[in-house]
Amino acid sequence: MRALVRRETGLVLDRNYPMPTPVYGEALIRVLQAGICNTDLEITRGYMAFEGVLGHEFVGIVEEVLDTSGIPSAHPLVGQRVVGEINTACRHPDCYYCQQNMPTHCPNRTTLGIVNRDGAFAEYLTLPLENLHLVPNTVSDEEAVFVEPLAANFEMLEQVHLKPTNRAIVLGDGKMGQLAAQVLTLTGCEVTMVGKHDEKLALVQQRGIQTQKLADIASSGAEQRVDLVVECTGSAQGLELAMQLVRPRGTIILKSTIAANSTIHLAPIVINEIRIQGSRCGPFAPALRALTQHFVDVRPLISARYTLDEGRAAFGHAEQKGVLKVLVRV
Amino acid sequence: MRALVRRETGLVLDRNYPMPTPVYGEALIRVLQAGICNTDLEITRGYMAFEGVLGHEFVGIVEEVLDTSGIPSAHPLVGQRVVGEINTACRHPDCYYCQQNMPTHCPNRTTLGIVNRDGAFAEYLTLPLENLHLVPNTVSDEEAVFVEPLAANFEMLEQVHLKPTNRAIVLGDGKMGQLAAQVLTLTGCEVTMVGKHDEKLALVQQRGIQTQKLADIASSGAEQRVDLVVECTGSAQGLELAMQLVRPRGTIILKSTIAANSTIHLAPIVINEIRIQGSRCGPFAPALRALTQHFVDVRPLISARYTLDEGRAAFGHAEQKGVLKVLVRV
Repeated sequence: MRALVRRETGLVLDRNYPMPTPVYGEALIRVLQAGICNTDLEITRGYMAFEGVLGHEFVGIVEEVLDTSGIPSAHPLVGQRVVGEINTACRHPDCYYCQQNMPTHCPNRTTLGIVNRDGAFAEYLTLPLENLHLVPNTVSDEEAVFVEPLAANFEMLEQVHLKPTNRAIVLGDGKMGQLAAQVLTLTGCEVTMVGKHDEKLALVQQRGIQTQKLADIASSGAEQRVDLVVECTGSAQGLELAMQLVRPRGTIILKSTIAANSTIHLAPIVINEIRIQGSRCGPFAPALRALTQHFVDVRPLISARYTLDEGRAAFGHAEQKGVLKVLVRV
Repeated sequence: MRALVRRETGLVLDRNYPMPTPVYGEALIRVLQAGICNTDLEITRGYMAFEGVLGHEFVGIVEEVLDTSGIPSAHPLVGQRVVGEINTACRHPDCYYCQQNMPTHCPNRTTLGIVNRDGAFAEYLTLPLENLHLVPNTVSDEEAVFVEPLAANFEMLEQVHLKPTNRAIVLGDGKMGQLAAQVLTLTGCEVTMVGKHDEKLALVQQRGIQTQKLADIASSGAEQRVDLVVECTGSAQGLELAMQLVRPRGTIILKSTIAANSTIHLAPIVINEIRIQGSRCGPFAPALRALTQHFVDVRPLISARYTLDEGRAAFGHAEQKGVLKVLVRV
């Protein structure tokens, strides 16, 4: 099959990549579309030392589910359009994380297109049946590709009780910040997006979310301390600014992985009793409901569309400044 | 009156320091004993740029409470033995923190012996009546001096739900770590203190709390991941180690103020969805109950006793390695 493969030597379109073969409990899925995430871009630069098929944001059709004898079965998911959670847990009775219903932290997990499992920029992929979620007819393929990153933003509301009367700041106007601002707004709280780019800030303004330019907030001092700050800039400076913007006993959510070592001043965390909460993958069901109910709109975040054959060009586009989501049609 | 005063030029015993004068709503308190905290030692080195009478851990007798006319009143606290919460809040109707019952975070607060209010290494101090707590007869003066730091450790249980089946590690065997280990043990959870000093680890071993030498845990790798790690070493390396010891979705509590900038690797916070929780002052009532009920024993933590006239020598002693609490009798 065709697949966009990250090798040590770089990103290549392989036209004869081996088809994945599902084991019992897994589905073979024909990929319809996949999205490029910042993590994909970091992997092309060496992050996670992953080699194989990239991609973990996708929508596809279940082609095949095998029964215990290895024979294709008439499973109800066959022929259905699905999205899939990207971490596959071991489900072993001795695994604390699996037993505590924390499969995304299973130490034996594979992660689609990131750790030990080929990903979605290919004609086919496999995932356990338990990872799959049916996509309602009212949700388009392009919207469905956003379910994974949208779910990662619902994870924040699993971790922190954001109250309708709270005030929140989203630091960063990129892909992650755009989704974070839309999800936080659902709680009823007052959300402000802080960013550098007028055209990206305009996207959330169109949804009635207020915005502020980074230069303005940096000069206005610590007056406007808020209950929650979500760090979506991916920089240590973002965390430093978050510590100035959050109120005593407030919460900072770290959404973006900062790969390098960072120098920060820790004393304010203790003095102001701040909570810093790391946040990664999240629940798919609320993300699908929010799309179905039109509570979030991901379509304005699509910057470009490519085919799988143009995969390398798609990655080149996604690397450019100011670009939001780049989609790849298989 | 006599007072141990931090001046820019150093620590001096002033025999003619002006008596503090209570305003309406405050009590004049005659200090019986006070304890030296690491924060006091940091202040002598310039932390908080505080000049005035040091000291915020004390027990004393209420000498005087004035009525609205400025005349000494027959307030029921007069003549009683008390300890006092160290932050004085503005209680203004427009103050968010006071209205939200977070007086320890009031931006207009003074803090006894730390910010804009003379402290406890003196014959007298003043505090608002609402800050005072009666000391039961069964709690000795020496024990009562520990109420403030003990309360700061109960703050952890206000912030984090530690379950009886959880496992916790206290990093650091100093004054703070000793109290943290005793308080965490009350929850029923399995506590391990990790430290460098056999004699300090022996103190918690005597209470049935398990211990491990830092060198051993550093070499044993990340096998023993626990639900909660309390950072009481006051070093950035302590936080790095805590991030290796805590399980995914676990919590790290920062108890000690790390004054300098620290270089840390932030990515594991996101990947493992760790919560880092700063923790400062805490509730006095549970600390007094725990002392009354003999659930904690602070007496083994007393390393030395001095008089106020020997105050500078007391600070010299407290600076030495291996020393726990140094008490000063007024």
